[in-house]
Amino acid sequence: MRGAVIHAPGDVRFEERPDPTIVKPTDAVIRTIAACVCGSDLWRYRGVAEVPHPTPIGHEYVGVVEEIGSEVRSVHPGDFVVGGFLTSDNSCPHCQAGQHANCQHGGGYDGCQAERIRIPLADGTLLATPEQPDPDLIPSLLALSDVMCTGWHAAVCAGVRPGSTVVVVGDGAVGLSGVLAASHMGAARLIAVSRHADRQAIARDFGATDIVAERGDAGVRHVMELTDGIGADAVLECVGTEDSVSQALASARPGAMVGWVGVPHITELPQNHMFWKNVGLRGGPAPVRAYLPELLQLVWERRIEPGKVFDLELPLAQVADAYAAMDERRATKVLLRP
Amino acid sequence: MRGAVIHAPGDVRFEERPDPTIVKPTDAVIRTIAACVCGSDLWRYRGVAEVPHPTPIGHEYVGVVEEIGSEVRSVHPGDFVVGGFLTSDNSCPHCQAGQHANCQHGGGYDGCQAERIRIPLADGTLLATPEQPDPDLIPSLLALSDVMCTGWHAAVCAGVRPGSTVVVVGDGAVGLSGVLAASHMGAARLIAVSRHADRQAIARDFGATDIVAERGDAGVRHVMELTDGIGADAVLECVGTEDSVSQALASARPGAMVGWVGVPHITELPQNHMFWKNVGLRGGPAPVRAYLPELLQLVWERRIEPGKVFDLELPLAQVADAYAAMDERRATKVLLRP
Repeated sequence: MRGAVIHAPGDVRFEERPDPTIVKPTDAVIRTIAACVCGSDLWRYRGVAEVPHPTPIGHEYVGVVEEIGSEVRSVHPGDFVVGGFLTSDNSCPHCQAGQHANCQHGGGYDGCQAERIRIPLADGTLLATPEQPDPDLIPSLLALSDVMCTGWHAAVCAGVRPGSTVVVVGDGAVGLSGVLAASHMGAARLIAVSRHADRQAIARDFGATDIVAERGDAGVRHVMELTDGIGADAVLECVGTEDSVSQALASARPGAMVGWVGVPHITELPQNHMFWKNVGLRGGPAPVRAYLPELLQLVWERRIEPGKVFDLELPLAQVADAYAAMDERRATKVLLRP
Repeated sequence: MRGAVIHAPGDVRFEERPDPTIVKPTDAVIRTIAACVCGSDLWRYRGVAEVPHPTPIGHEYVGVVEEIGSEVRSVHPGDFVVGGFLTSDNSCPHCQAGQHANCQHGGGYDGCQAERIRIPLADGTLLATPEQPDPDLIPSLLALSDVMCTGWHAAVCAGVRPGSTVVVVGDGAVGLSGVLAASHMGAARLIAVSRHADRQAIARDFGATDIVAERGDAGVRHVMELTDGIGADAVLECVGTEDSVSQALASARPGAMVGWVGVPHITELPQNHMFWKNVGLRGGPAPVRAYLPELLQLVWERRIEPGKVFDLELPLAQVADAYAAMDERRATKVLLRP
């Protein structure tokens, strides 16, 4: 089969790779229906993270089960399945507490931008749809494998409630998904921080009531103007830089939480916006499997359409073009089909 | 009247100061019944914080109202009152959200280790007891002015619930109060980090089920041994150093919150224990006035006895001895009576 392999910064190739097979009795092998490129994949593409040797890449997918190991019980050949960007056993103490991203036996995987994928811990990682989905649902189901669950996690960690005033810092696919999550949770005032007209439009479509185009101190001032000097009840940080974390913390009202899902490119936090203001920070990689049942149901009932974050679709064989389009910001998020 | 004035590190004097008077119509003047020395007062005593000029000191007190301004409605001359270490109007948007420590019109004050004290924003800061308290209740009522509410805040921020496994880092008066708070909130397993036999005894009396004497990585390992490698559901950080914050974060299980009330002597946070483990951090100065009604009731009904943190009592005139005793760790917390 063929799949994407990153050889060096800027060098992603679609090439022959070994067909995946059942290695452990808890494995499944799926045939990919759709995959996509994550903002975090761009770190290696841009040379921010190292590429020590050619590495299969990608961690977002939906597909149809082709083969299962002898111990797999919950998914069956022919099932259409969604899985998260981390594997989980759905049974360890951390999973039982809803913290599937920190499963004692789970881990990450690469190589999902491929025609076939081996999924370890299939029972605890995959969720099957009730039946084969209508084609128009595919993008939204695919969005559940990472960005929608990650935006949802930000909103959960920030404690968004009906009536909340919410700020979302970041207008990438995760930030936009955070807007959709906060809107679904009942945010009354929903301020999206975005400088790009196309992304502002998606944010408004997802429920944003206000747009703040400024960053940094100017962005904080604008939020304060919009909130009578009080600040937001909940803030979603969906970027991960020191500037964006600072902006998120400074936009929060005393006692508020910042939900933090932008993978941090910082080693230390600017706590001066935290302690004296009683602003908290909580987040990390999303426990996708914990959120999948509820969110898959919402997609299935067409109550949310997170797939709108995809603004470009390409054949999987053109995966290199997908990276280039996202790197050059010609696309927010690219959907790939084999 | 006479009161404590810090002149320089190590130099606290009990000396004549002007009698406080009503300055604003929202003020009250109280006659001090008891006051105490806070761990945070020691920063200046130890030269960690500057003493640019002689400064009246102290921010914990109980007393009897002597005089009120024309706009004060909720307390009256003769009332026995408790107040927090920060003033608050109990009406601004932040107070309405329970965030009295960040009141839009409140602030700090010094000079409460004195025979009389002017209390700004008396209606929003002070709470009167139902009647004159029995003498044995005085220490516990005094503890509500800071340490007990601060320990309670740590437990609230950490999300302690019935059945929780809780770790409390710090065995000063705040840490011990945190143990009492977590115990009252229903912690099933309550691990106090303490190296001192006398403080361990108070911690056990307050409900601690386990003692961890080690600090740093060894302390974390001990917590992990006690929790089957899982970590704590909630952690109270009651010290404020980089080491103690790191120990608190590393003791938390994935998805847990660290309640953070040790005034931070750090400018940046060690986030490596946070994001990838989905461990959150929330806290700051306690909104004392928000907690006072509930905690005063608990003290009044003798259901909690936070006054046990006082292990030395001195006449207010010997306030300099109180500082020395706490500085030299001969006392955990000193109660002073005029």
